[in-house]
Amino acid sequence: MALPPEFHDIAKRVNNWGRWGEADEIGTLNLITDGVVRSAAATVRTGRRVPLALPLQQDGVQTGLIPGRVNPLHTMIAVNLEIFGSGTVATSDDAVTMALQAATHWDGLTHVSHSGKIYNGRPAGSVTAHGRAAFSGIEKARHIVSRGVLLDVARAHATDSRWPAALTGGHAVTPEDLEAAEELAGTAVRSGDIVLVRTGQMRKYLAGDKQGYAFPSPGLSIRCPEWFHARDAAAVANDTLTFEIFPPEIDDLWLPVHALDLVEMGMLQGQNWNLEELSEACADEGRYEFLLSAMPEPFVGGTGTPVAPVAIL
Amino acid sequence: MALPPEFHDIAKRVNNWGRWGEADEIGTLNLITDGVVRSAAATVRTGRRVPLALPLQQDGVQTGLIPGRVNPLHTMIAVNLEIFGSGTVATSDDAVTMALQAATHWDGLTHVSHSGKIYNGRPAGSVTAHGRAAFSGIEKARHIVSRGVLLDVARAHATDSRWPAALTGGHAVTPEDLEAAEELAGTAVRSGDIVLVRTGQMRKYLAGDKQGYAFPSPGLSIRCPEWFHARDAAAVANDTLTFEIFPPEIDDLWLPVHALDLVEMGMLQGQNWNLEELSEACADEGRYEFLLSAMPEPFVGGTGTPVAPVAIL
Amino acid sequence: MALPPEFHDIAKRVNNWGRWGEADEIGTLNLITDGVVRSAAATVRTGRRVPLALPLQQDGVQTGLIPGRVNPLHTMIAVNLEIFGSGTVATSDDAVTMALQAATHWDGLTHVSHSGKIYNGRPAGSVTAHGRAAFSGIEKARHIVSRGVLLDVARAHATDSRWPAALTGGHAVTPEDLEAAEELAGTAVRSGDIVLVRTGQMRKYLAGDKQGYAFPSPGLSIRCPEWFHARDAAAVANDTLTFEIFPPEIDDLWLPVHALDLVEMGMLQGQNWNLEELSEACADEGRYEFLLSAMPEPFVGGTGTPVAPVAIL
Amino acid sequence: MALPPEFHDIAKRVNNWGRWGEADEIGTLNLITDGVVRSAAATVRTGRRVPLALPLQQDGVQTGLIPGRVNPLHTMIAVNLEIFGSGTVATSDDAVTMALQAATHWDGLTHVSHSGKIYNGRPAGSVTAHGRAAFSGIEKARHIVSRGVLLDVARAHATDSRWPAALTGGHAVTPEDLEAAEELAGTAVRSGDIVLVRTGQMRKYLAGDKQGYAFPSPGLSIRCPEWFHARDAAAVANDTLTFEIFPPEIDDLWLPVHALDLVEMGMLQGQNWNLEELSEACADEGRYEFLLSAMPEPFVGGTGTPVAPVAIL
Repeated sequence: MALPPEFHDIAKRVNNWGRWGEADEIGTLNLITDGVVRSAAATVRTGRRVPLALPLQQDGVQTGLIPGRVNPLHTMIAVNLEIFGSGTVATSDDAVTMALQAATHWDGLTHVSHSGKIYNGRPAGSVTAHGRAAFSGIEKARHIVSRGVLLDVARAHATDSRWPAALTGGHAVTPEDLEAAEELAGTAVRSGDIVLVRTGQMRKYLAGDKQGYAFPSPGLSIRCPEWFHARDAAAVANDTLTFEIFPPEIDDLWLPVHALDLVEMGMLQGQNWNLEELSEACADEGRYEFLLSAMPEPFVGGTGTPVAPVAIL
Repeated sequence: MALPPEFHDIAKRVNNWGRWGEADEIGTLNLITDGVVRSAAATVRTGRRVPLALPLQQDGVQTGLIPGRVNPLHTMIAVNLEIFGSGTVATSDDAVTMALQAATHWDGLTHVSHSGKIYNGRPAGSVTAHGRAAFSGIEKARHIVSRGVLLDVARAHATDSRWPAALTGGHAVTPEDLEAAEELAGTAVRSGDIVLVRTGQMRKYLAGDKQGYAFPSPGLSIRCPEWFHARDAAAVANDTLTFEIFPPEIDDLWLPVHALDLVEMGMLQGQNWNLEELSEACADEGRYEFLLSAMPEPFVGGTGTPVAPVAIL
Repeated sequence: MALPPEFHDIAKRVNNWGRWGEADEIGTLNLITDGVVRSAAATVRTGRRVPLALPLQQDGVQTGLIPGRVNPLHTMIAVNLEIFGSGTVATSDDAVTMALQAATHWDGLTHVSHSGKIYNGRPAGSVTAHGRAAFSGIEKARHIVSRGVLLDVARAHATDSRWPAALTGGHAVTPEDLEAAEELAGTAVRSGDIVLVRTGQMRKYLAGDKQGYAFPSPGLSIRCPEWFHARDAAAVANDTLTFEIFPPEIDDLWLPVHALDLVEMGMLQGQNWNLEELSEACADEGRYEFLLSAMPEPFVGGTGTPVAPVAIL
Repeated sequence: MALPPEFHDIAKRVNNWGRWGEADEIGTLNLITDGVVRSAAATVRTGRRVPLALPLQQDGVQTGLIPGRVNPLHTMIAVNLEIFGSGTVATSDDAVTMALQAATHWDGLTHVSHSGKIYNGRPAGSVTAHGRAAFSGIEKARHIVSRGVLLDVARAHATDSRWPAALTGGHAVTPEDLEAAEELAGTAVRSGDIVLVRTGQMRKYLAGDKQGYAFPSPGLSIRCPEWFHARDAAAVANDTLTFEIFPPEIDDLWLPVHALDLVEMGMLQGQNWNLEELSEACADEGRYEFLLSAMPEPFVGGTGTPVAPVAIL
């Protein structure tokens, strides 16, 4: 089963291989210049901070459908251990086992490959069990700080007088949806931005419906990568498990958005971001831009990473 | 063996129990107000970003001396797995097992107890193997963003014409050292700041000397907590394994700074922060203040957390 | 909520504290003498071997109901890694994270405590997060090899002309059931034997019904420990998740058999043993005794251990 | 770098591909017939049991030299947790993260490959990160029980009046050494036997010298596989980290014995077996044969497994 022509057509149009040189390993993060960050810092008005990560706990979003992608197993190595003798200062220490893509995370550029290639035309075989990602490991994304823009698609549809707290499972978020959300936001996505797309799907998980959260899920349409490419977004995250519409729009074409974003564009994707509190905060303040810090944990050769993003309004 | 009177004398002077109410679980993080963050954002001049976390890898800073505090074991769950059939988009996924205090991390308020108590006078017994920290778990520190100030003690001593790239193992960093570094920085620590104290000890690890990095180590003197308390610092981090001078200044008084900071003041501590690049950047730019984002991974009940801090200059 | 008088009455009758001295840490395993093992070896007739462990895989018997008791996460550290250069011999290595009580396992004597005590009257507080079990850790059970006797309660009932491939969820296995199975077996349980009690409940798991396997479950009645005590069994295992009838026979009296077996008698329990193939083999051969090797993995201070038992007929 | 002609010459002579059919996945374990096991059970005289596994603990034999092969990290999930309410029966549970080849273990047939092949001529590529070993996974070795023979090479040399408690690091164990040990044992290795070769190297680890234990190490010579092949041994284990002489006898020919045993013969290898107590027991009793049970933990697709062997004399 090969990828269909419509995929390859889009792939050609959004391809960034070589754009930042043959040695490049970070793709669209190159678009976050010092100037972009200066402007981003200037968006801070109130100093209000909104965290976007889900709690890390065994009762996380994973349901066991994806083998190996386990929720955190968090154990104590020591509990009030008087390591230097009775009556001395006592220490408690923890350990964790978890999948890097289990909770609120960034997909690294090597999280997917297609046709034997990863970003910048390198061989997929450069990812190995023992070495992990030899190129474009998540540790190469040294810092992810930029202007964040919340495209609150669920809310934009709601102002459209049809109140959906959240999009339905079958809703593929289109460029038109993104533009409606831009209008609500009162700002246009520009080069170097990190775009947060809210579908409201997270409400299912927060209400205790893990299965409903997972599937079926609204998510980005295959038409979105071109839109992000045209705007030169640096990264995109949303509030779903699969990021893109799932099951997919085109029969038997699985994960096309992943392949276009990560492999062709070299653009990081974020999943399972909790955008509910941010949605309220942005609506309260009437603005949808902010300074966003979403630092990857620098796992050497990681194809993804947990992230604890914060929006600073 | 009880803690000596001199410890209890200082403890009384820096104690913050009840200061933010009996229900408080975050201590000095309360000092980071919206106004503090607004001012912090206003320190951004160039947009230059400096990451402060060490790479997460098996060859990390832990040497095995602290049982259970294991360096990351990072494995692949899948490598270019064509999950939907041959020729489809392929995925790679990772998992990790690591101690939360293994690498660049925050000590949560419950990381130590003394005399049966944790911060705000709660019983140490509220930390358990199955529940972890019932109070003041690291997930309660929802966001850690503030003005960062680099107190480059190693460099301050160097300008003092005795060039040490780093302090020696036996050097206890005193309030006088901190004030010399403040003078170099051209700014005084104020309420809500996150203070980064550079000893230069990290150079040993970066040069491959893990044992030398671990022990003996320069670090904060037992006299520092009062100084941080007087300035109302929100948190303090440095570039050593033990944070405080190790072995300790006073015979058989182990980890007194931990006990004063975490238990008495309710102030988070950071360890194993790599401040080398930041030191160069601050010296280049002639300023030592910046916006600092150092978001904890929200492990529920965690007594610590890996952190990937970033200074935005 | 205290344990009821009927529990304490039985507890007194089966208590073995001090029976093998105050220093003893292995309880009824003391009953397995060299002579018992010699006789056990003499039961081997055909040389047929039947393994009794479930496969270790992520799709194991745990359903997530018991927090932290995770099925195995088995990952590859290396896959055909040519560690000494291209064209050399290549190696593959694995790692695992799992709960010791997740799959086919022995409960160690410290797996439960009641009224603040573990086996032999030691304080429950001797089990700690950092040290694990200071006494009666599973590594103290150096070898578990003896005569095994299959008490095939499900089959015994079946010959009773009511064919149940398995007991129903509500069936509490009583001493009368055990004796009916002894009759079927043609042998009586004697000192030092390891008794395997088959309920047939494992068929549910093998048929893919993990929830049905877990709950409700047939299992041993609170009346069984006295029977095992009278016969001086060395250890008992069965083919259920909970070992004893679950939910319990007496309202609000949870895990009484665990407390009686492990704490009072000092007798190891085995759970999730797959006795289906063994049941067929014993019925084929018309005998229900065999040499059983069920060696614990010697986790130091472990309160349990995975086990891969084998019956040698 | 290709494998040298002398390797391929031996490989041809010991190759067992197809011997038990094209579908075979267990190699020389086929030699353990019911009859072999019956005879093995008949060797039991005293009923004395000797366990052969090292304790599983963080302070294990691994030194960090082999990336990812981590000693056990054993943590408590719960410690005396009164899961059903205060005063009820309390439970303690454990979890572990460890490399399957970290401690006393069996190498599965897929632990190594050479020239792109594993045992029975299957492609090395059948081992993958997500699926692990598709063929000859360790779970296929359903039971490993047979006659064990201790070839106590160290002791045989000692009776030779040159007393070495252990062989020196540079000693390659040859067929002549094995035959001298057979003479001491008073029995010849025959079809289906599991052979335990004692070098005495384990004494270094037991004395606290982990580095000395690891390297340099005595071990089997490249000449041994033919000897085991001629005798039709079912499996071989010894008391070293590397099994074969290390560094190797022939420059740049690394792990030839692994490749011959596992890939060509399809014969399991055991490493880090503690044969010290067994050596004493056999010398005491004047016989070196016994019933050996060395059951693999059935990790599905595992390329190795921890094992807790027991010799029953």
